[in-house]
Amino acid sequence: MNVASRKPASVKNTVERVSAPYEPGVNMTIKNAFYAQSGGVTAVINASACGVIETARKHADKIGTVYAGRNGIIGALTEDLIDTSKESDADIAALRYTPSGAFGSCRFKMKSLEANKREYERLIDIFKAHNIGYFFYNGGGDSADTCFKVSQLSEAMGYPIQAIHVPKTVDNDLPITDCCPGFGSVAKYIAVSTLEASFDVKSMCKTSTKIFVVEVMGRHAGWIAAAGGLVADQGIPVVILFPEIEFDQAKFLASVDAKVKEHGFCTIVVSEGCHYPDGKFLAEQGTRDAFGHAQLGGAAPVVANMIKEALGYKFHWAVADYLQRAARHIASKTDVEQAYALGEAAVMLALDGKNSVMPTVVRLSDIPYKWEIGAAELKDVANVEKFMPRDFISEDGYGITDKCRNYLTGLIQGEDYPAYENGLPKFVTMKNVAVEKKLPEFKL
Amino acid sequence: MNVASRKPASVKNTVERVSAPYEPGVNMTIKNAFYAQSGGVTAVINASACGVIETARKHADKIGTVYAGRNGIIGALTEDLIDTSKESDADIAALRYTPSGAFGSCRFKMKSLEANKREYERLIDIFKAHNIGYFFYNGGGDSADTCFKVSQLSEAMGYPIQAIHVPKTVDNDLPITDCCPGFGSVAKYIAVSTLEASFDVKSMCKTSTKIFVVEVMGRHAGWIAAAGGLVADQGIPVVILFPEIEFDQAKFLASVDAKVKEHGFCTIVVSEGCHYPDGKFLAEQGTRDAFGHAQLGGAAPVVANMIKEALGYKFHWAVADYLQRAARHIASKTDVEQAYALGEAAVMLALDGKNSVMPTVVRLSDIPYKWEIGAAELKDVANVEKFMPRDFISEDGYGITDKCRNYLTGLIQGEDYPAYENGLPKFVTMKNVAVEKKLPEFKL
Repeated sequence: MNVASRKPASVKNTVERVSAPYEPGVNMTIKNAFYAQSGGVTAVINASACGVIETARKHADKIGTVYAGRNGIIGALTEDLIDTSKESDADIAALRYTPSGAFGSCRFKMKSLEANKREYERLIDIFKAHNIGYFFYNGGGDSADTCFKVSQLSEAMGYPIQAIHVPKTVDNDLPITDCCPGFGSVAKYIAVSTLEASFDVKSMCKTSTKIFVVEVMGRHAGWIAAAGGLVADQGIPVVILFPEIEFDQAKFLASVDAKVKEHGFCTIVVSEGCHYPDGKFLAEQGTRDAFGHAQLGGAAPVVANMIKEALGYKFHWAVADYLQRAARHIASKTDVEQAYALGEAAVMLALDGKNSVMPTVVRLSDIPYKWEIGAAELKDVANVEKFMPRDFISEDGYGITDKCRNYLTGLIQGEDYPAYENGLPKFVTMKNVAVEKKLPEFKL
Repeated sequence: MNVASRKPASVKNTVERVSAPYEPGVNMTIKNAFYAQSGGVTAVINASACGVIETARKHADKIGTVYAGRNGIIGALTEDLIDTSKESDADIAALRYTPSGAFGSCRFKMKSLEANKREYERLIDIFKAHNIGYFFYNGGGDSADTCFKVSQLSEAMGYPIQAIHVPKTVDNDLPITDCCPGFGSVAKYIAVSTLEASFDVKSMCKTSTKIFVVEVMGRHAGWIAAAGGLVADQGIPVVILFPEIEFDQAKFLASVDAKVKEHGFCTIVVSEGCHYPDGKFLAEQGTRDAFGHAQLGGAAPVVANMIKEALGYKFHWAVADYLQRAARHIASKTDVEQAYALGEAAVMLALDGKNSVMPTVVRLSDIPYKWEIGAAELKDVANVEKFMPRDFISEDGYGITDKCRNYLTGLIQGEDYPAYENGLPKFVTMKNVAVEKKLPEFKL
């Protein structure tokens, strides 16, 4: 089937095959649901899981058990399913405050139906064996593509399945939705941490550190780096190195030097994806250790050493890496609420008979930030990457514009602290009880 | 004067010279106070400043204006004083929630009285010119030494000054006091962040990252690294690389490999001070870039690459650097309370006529953690470094013992969140109004 030509009518057809439960007076066929987490995890992907499972539990007349894939789609393919009904309501509620992927995630991209029919047939076998009629896939761009392919199974392989994608990615690069759950919390973490560290450097700059470089995630898009730009409102001199802007060493050094001369210090937020005009990442310096082995370093030490060599300023640098995307302790309340709402909406869309869709965040206003839940067709989501608009980046390429500031500010609103016990956050670990296998083994 | 032989009598003599204000019926001589921040700043050094200034304001009958040194002791030497009376009560109260050094800090160690009499004479000139009778110095080991030298001025140079040291250092290496303000908050940040990132890796390890390395501060002592060990209680496989334990590559790799084989992943907390038996830091790998320039990297990428090369595991690494010591957003409530209490106690010690002392934290019990304020003679503090006891480190050198866990747990108790505005913490920036200069310029 050519998905681009999919008409509402065909969606309706798909739905009708699983719509028996909705017909009053007809013996209800309760279907189970499959839920899986995919790709890099975030501080709030479990909040989406919480939204999916709590909402499904409220509709036990239509949805039976929610089976989670252990380690994402791999759990489906290998029939390694987790019975979430074995988890208490309290533990499921605690997912809202627990970072990471509670059921395990994976980096595994399914090929097209044509290229690997065997895997899709296996999925159908699993769905049939466990009476699964709902497929909720929680991930980013690659996962949206997988989910879209699964949504085609209904027609292509004659098995009734409603596939709903639940958006998630700190990279914030999914189209249509105003933002992606996970991003708002990373943005908040980076803005808060950059502000704190900048205050620190400001205190030290008279006789010591004048340069602070923090490296943030974002290989293709500078959304996360942009969040560091929010500290400029508080008088912090900050230079941002976006992946969208080709690195120009002389211009960059001049910008940093001017800021140090004016303010006594300068903060630099460098995206891991920052690169030279020839595409080479800043982090790829051809660096070798004493034995001649290639060393993988970060962009931050490269930038810091570059400044030291050219301008002589004492520096400190940090690489936030997983600390940023796992930082549930300073998650954005808005982000948590959206993550939950999207999980909830995915189930409601399923109950509404939808297939091949993704619930989205629709922005209603910037200040105050108001949003509601919408929905997008997966055919419009899969394999489309959303980059930062050029007018979100200041003309010199090193800062953010008001437009960007207005966009970001809404996403970092509010705090949503986890409970603490003995000084540490009280995160939940699922029991993750395995469902009995019914099928022969399957080699990945 | 031989400080080691100082007797209570001589302390008393010192006090009597400035004790006029305490004699009832005698015309009160109100003295001003000098307060300065020194060395690396922390998330809570401003809470100590808050304690000093608020307490001084409550005793306006004895203490006049609190002058802060702009950029630490340099502000005193160059007569660059800040009039804190120009700051509102609300702004001074907000210091409690603001990381960094609000008046600027410095890295500047005064030489001995014999080696640099000129600087001490200058200090006395400044004290005289601004009627300063109280000297509060907020810092670590070097600052305690400076404060001790200033405390000797009274006798050695015939100027009445009461010098009180307010402890501060994330390194936690001051003697006598149970802990140093700043450390508890870094410990909490590292424990929380390590826990969050470990949950993340645990989700990813099936098909992706199996190793997470986080580098923490602590060149000489492993107090901060030890805090990462607290996550072991939550089932996280963690290997800690302390500066106290000479690095043994083969043994380390075997320990990591065993943990990955058992748990599927492993978290490594490496102290920046971790070194080989010959004293060479892990971070000093003789690394050179493509042009042959020496590159300063961190210990984390070295450890991560080492594991990748030997064991083949996919890794991620982070370097927390200033993010850890500036992280007011997740400060330990206990730490904030101690920082404030020590600032307050410093003023009360001064009002009690004390000189050459440092208020301390005295531990009364581990669980629940109970503490009170005590005091130590500066002669017993200056130039004494407190290391981690060997029995705080597990026998294999890669973990912490129950003794260490009991020690650390008290220090990270409680959260003390700053207020937020528009998604970001509401930190205060002082007006920092300069006091009119009365003396000729002084070249440092």
